[in-house]
Amino acid sequence: MEDLSRLSFNQMTAGKAPLREVIDACSRQGIEWIGPWRHSIGDNPAEWGKTLRDSGLKVSSLCRGGMFPAATAEERRKRIDDNLRAIDEAVAIGTDLLVLVNGPSPDKDIDGARQMVADGIAAIVDHAEQSGVRLAIEPLHPMFAADRSVIVTMSEANALAELFRAGSVGLVVDVYHVWWDPEVYRQIERAGERIFAFHVSDWIVPLPDTLMGRGLMGDGVIELQRLRNAVERAGYTGPIEVEIFNEALWSQPVGEIARSVAERFCLTV
Amino acid sequence: MEDLSRLSFNQMTAGKAPLREVIDACSRQGIEWIGPWRHSIGDNPAEWGKTLRDSGLKVSSLCRGGMFPAATAEERRKRIDDNLRAIDEAVAIGTDLLVLVNGPSPDKDIDGARQMVADGIAAIVDHAEQSGVRLAIEPLHPMFAADRSVIVTMSEANALAELFRAGSVGLVVDVYHVWWDPEVYRQIERAGERIFAFHVSDWIVPLPDTLMGRGLMGDGVIELQRLRNAVERAGYTGPIEVEIFNEALWSQPVGEIARSVAERFCLTV
Repeated sequence: MEDLSRLSFNQMTAGKAPLREVIDACSRQGIEWIGPWRHSIGDNPAEWGKTLRDSGLKVSSLCRGGMFPAATAEERRKRIDDNLRAIDEAVAIGTDLLVLVNGPSPDKDIDGARQMVADGIAAIVDHAEQSGVRLAIEPLHPMFAADRSVIVTMSEANALAELFRAGSVGLVVDVYHVWWDPEVYRQIERAGERIFAFHVSDWIVPLPDTLMGRGLMGDGVIELQRLRNAVERAGYTGPIEVEIFNEALWSQPVGEIARSVAERFCLTV
Repeated sequence: MEDLSRLSFNQMTAGKAPLREVIDACSRQGIEWIGPWRHSIGDNPAEWGKTLRDSGLKVSSLCRGGMFPAATAEERRKRIDDNLRAIDEAVAIGTDLLVLVNGPSPDKDIDGARQMVADGIAAIVDHAEQSGVRLAIEPLHPMFAADRSVIVTMSEANALAELFRAGSVGLVVDVYHVWWDPEVYRQIERAGERIFAFHVSDWIVPLPDTLMGRGLMGDGVIELQRLRNAVERAGYTGPIEVEIFNEALWSQPVGEIARSVAERFCLTV
């Protein structure tokens, strides 16, 4: 088995498996990094922080904050409060990185919703800086523009991040979301030190499902090594997180999933 | 019923209904334009040209040429020959516009495939000009990057079109494919006189299916009137083509489909 030191296992790659099982499977597989989700952390971030520290795993990021746009000022305020809590949770579980999936528009005004995202990040960035937590904007694939994120290109995410300090707000480059973009290599170069995370999976043809159809690395058409080389040329040296939503994969035992992920990571990324 | 003079009925909005039935339904509904597909024209473009002229309908475009990228030089040559035939068919059925859906990559090298598209258009543009046929590059939604078109943004389509004369090569602006793009209004302005066609439908939430899930105008989240205003400000005054791939719609009688399309067009576009 080749070097796994860069590999991070995003919890959702194991679907609905309990976080405890995912932690154990990663440890057994020799995976050094993990990316947990907030729904598993729940009301016990301190306890999960201890569990994660005791496991010896490093935490690459917490998924996810964001979801800023909403129809009313009150609801937008609630979303901001939730993001402030997410920053505290990131600290508690021992990561300095919060991933932002920025949410859909509450109505047809997509540009208005984009402004709400900028306003939302502006409202939490001070608390993030004071907490030592960096905010990573994740542009999602444009097919999610209506239901998950109005931020859908690297270019847009770069422009948004550039409103803030370079050490505070940056990007997640997730190959599934950005591989199609004729500007992707130019925008990776532009992002430079603002690349806070690099996520890998693959785009299967034909696509089984927009959300649940991601493939294991090597099963699809994405130029994984070219993209990895580009983010590294731009200066990124951090963990490479495997995030795969796929029902067929999720039906396997967690240990099998971790083994497949580690193997494919060595072969293809 | 409001003015239908700008409405064109793309044949595929009626699914697998025979072209003859679609022509009759449009005529009965007071629709003045139609956009046929090559699979219906078959080996009888002259005959269909006569049928269309006799019907009194104007032909907004022929769908579709393109599909240039292929693994071998011989296969690429065949694709080019097919596009030369498509230009002749456009002339025969009485339209000066051929829509180009440019095809997927034969391998993982998406940028290489993009060059094959540019080479393909370069190989047919003289014949198109001599035939009085304009070529309209249709950027598809990025979710089709792996299986239908490596050209997936307005920006890319503009750059490609700008390699050729403005009167010869331009764009189809299809709202379903471009509505999500933070650059769409800037790119519509850039396209200007190169906007050769404007297609409408809607993006339903949640999306029933990437290919077969388009909605009738008004059923989704697309800012149709804002986009129409933008293409008109850019100078476009031609037909507005309704192109909807939707199994539920296709299950209705053709006359019903034509009536729904005409109604929605007046209410929402």
